[in-house]
Amino acid sequence: MGNDTFLKACRRQPAEYTPVWLMRQAGRYMKEYMAIREKHSFLEMCRNPELACEVTLQPIRAFDLDAAIIFADILLPLEGMGIDLEFAKNEGPVISNPVRTRKDIDAVRVINPAEDVPYLIKAIQMVRKELNGKVPLIGFSGAPFTLASYIIEGEGSRNYVHTKKLMYEDPESWKVLMDKIADVVIVYLEAQADAGAQVLQLFDSWVGCLGPDDFKKFALPYTKKVIDAVKKKGVPIINFGTNTGTYLDLVRQGGGDVIGVDWRVRLDDAWKTIGYEHAIQGNLDPVVLFGPVKEIRRRVKEIIDMAGGHAGHIFNLGHGIVLGTPVDNVRAVVDSVHEFSGK
Amino acid sequence: MGNDTFLKACRRQPAEYTPVWLMRQAGRYMKEYMAIREKHSFLEMCRNPELACEVTLQPIRAFDLDAAIIFADILLPLEGMGIDLEFAKNEGPVISNPVRTRKDIDAVRVINPAEDVPYLIKAIQMVRKELNGKVPLIGFSGAPFTLASYIIEGEGSRNYVHTKKLMYEDPESWKVLMDKIADVVIVYLEAQADAGAQVLQLFDSWVGCLGPDDFKKFALPYTKKVIDAVKKKGVPIINFGTNTGTYLDLVRQGGGDVIGVDWRVRLDDAWKTIGYEHAIQGNLDPVVLFGPVKEIRRRVKEIIDMAGGHAGHIFNLGHGIVLGTPVDNVRAVVDSVHEFSGK
Repeated sequence: MGNDTFLKACRRQPAEYTPVWLMRQAGRYMKEYMAIREKHSFLEMCRNPELACEVTLQPIRAFDLDAAIIFADILLPLEGMGIDLEFAKNEGPVISNPVRTRKDIDAVRVINPAEDVPYLIKAIQMVRKELNGKVPLIGFSGAPFTLASYIIEGEGSRNYVHTKKLMYEDPESWKVLMDKIADVVIVYLEAQADAGAQVLQLFDSWVGCLGPDDFKKFALPYTKKVIDAVKKKGVPIINFGTNTGTYLDLVRQGGGDVIGVDWRVRLDDAWKTIGYEHAIQGNLDPVVLFGPVKEIRRRVKEIIDMAGGHAGHIFNLGHGIVLGTPVDNVRAVVDSVHEFSGK
Repeated sequence: MGNDTFLKACRRQPAEYTPVWLMRQAGRYMKEYMAIREKHSFLEMCRNPELACEVTLQPIRAFDLDAAIIFADILLPLEGMGIDLEFAKNEGPVISNPVRTRKDIDAVRVINPAEDVPYLIKAIQMVRKELNGKVPLIGFSGAPFTLASYIIEGEGSRNYVHTKKLMYEDPESWKVLMDKIADVVIVYLEAQADAGAQVLQLFDSWVGCLGPDDFKKFALPYTKKVIDAVKKKGVPIINFGTNTGTYLDLVRQGGGDVIGVDWRVRLDDAWKTIGYEHAIQGNLDPVVLFGPVKEIRRRVKEIIDMAGGHAGHIFNLGHGIVLGTPVDNVRAVVDSVHEFSGK
């Protein structure tokens, strides 16, 4: 491994400097990405290992990043689960057969990754070969609650009415669904580790719609089930939720070597709440990247200072890169993280 | 005043039982509302004192609520500020001349309520007369950050890129704009108090997109400016923000007799953080109202128990009533709050 700062930080070992990667680092803000995207649909790109590999490597070539993340979508397992997924023109997912009844739930299948997502396995193998040890490769999955809310709502949602209705009206069926989704996430992540992913991240993008007691009862047990099973593979796991800053003590109970945090908490407060026996990932507001470079650098330094020199800080945004982010400002983040942490 | 439990709770005086009102208690979930809405646009309803009065009173007739809130929209002051506001078919606001440059900011006017929102003043006077002391009437305004983000973005936003860009690139112009908006909010709320509003609520619906340090620097001083000025009117003020649970200590610094909290925090933890020298308002997840009555009642009781019998708890949802909420479940909330708090 040419650059193992990221792996070291995941394991809370002292690294030479603070490693940095950025959620959605491969994406529409890059002209190299758009050149491919103009010729292929988003799902075509995900399902074509050559294209997925190419797009994964684009930000690694463009910036001095310390990790790559496989180009994929958290909804890729849905097809194998028997759920019809399409992406509308604006790239928003739409499901024509949302899961809302017990009958729907019973029909959901646990995937077989070799059959259902062979392209992803292939893409991971290709990227590992291409990277040739330059930086580690991250595999990922949606966390059970976020996958459940997608397949129940059938599209992006503001209030998650169908999801919460199922939770409150029929907690038994909720459990059946969540156990099944957890089983999907387990085999999906295991297959990625077997294919060569060196770190795994769980994205719980929508779980922040739950209050703390609902999180504890309806989401946490299934994230914990996934992490307890997958950690046997021996690769570090990052547990990231958005908008969960009011109950990081509960998020931590889900497990994971690294807890990812968004920008609604100060990194120093967050790490104190989570505890220094976990590494931490985060947490620059992605919209700061639309500001002047001077302000970006000031905030990068502030976050590095808040990490206080403890081993185990991975610099990242608090959420994915936003469409329209200036490429030069992405570079400013990456380079200033390194500059301020002694590279 | 026939029922002063709400006013007592605002002032942290012991009340006979826990008072309850619900954000967006007048709205599309009621058939009486829809009967009027079918004949008039949303803005027509706001600008017609008879209709606004009628719609304000509908939930008071239908449920045993302890307060009325004037039917209005947080964007009503925009017209007088020189900003063109329309509501699209889905009731989402659209602004054709968003405020983004220093020139735009300099052109923003501070309103004269008697000239710019005479219909609102009239509606408040009518409602007070109709209520005839049955329950107190709440007036309200958007908080400065939320109004700023609307007039800068020009429509609903996911990432608030234009708003944050202005903050980061030109903090001086941000200050000019926010001071001007604070001045608008001050005269707008003062006019409502003069017209007869007995309590005033500030809604900071979008401020939760800010991290704690940005909140402190770019939003808090202007909320504080408003509250410091308006409190001279002698009516209690409710300071409510959404998605601010990670920095309630800062929200509290903005002032207000009552701090409103959403459902992402436990009420007991929130009140401890805020301190018992403030009353608290909240915080049932509005989507719980789509669940079974048994579960609604259980959660209402849980929140009342978390208030721990301290004087100064006003029961409310953690956000507005969601479209499609069953009317019977709204009644179940109101009645069970009273039942469990000894009415």
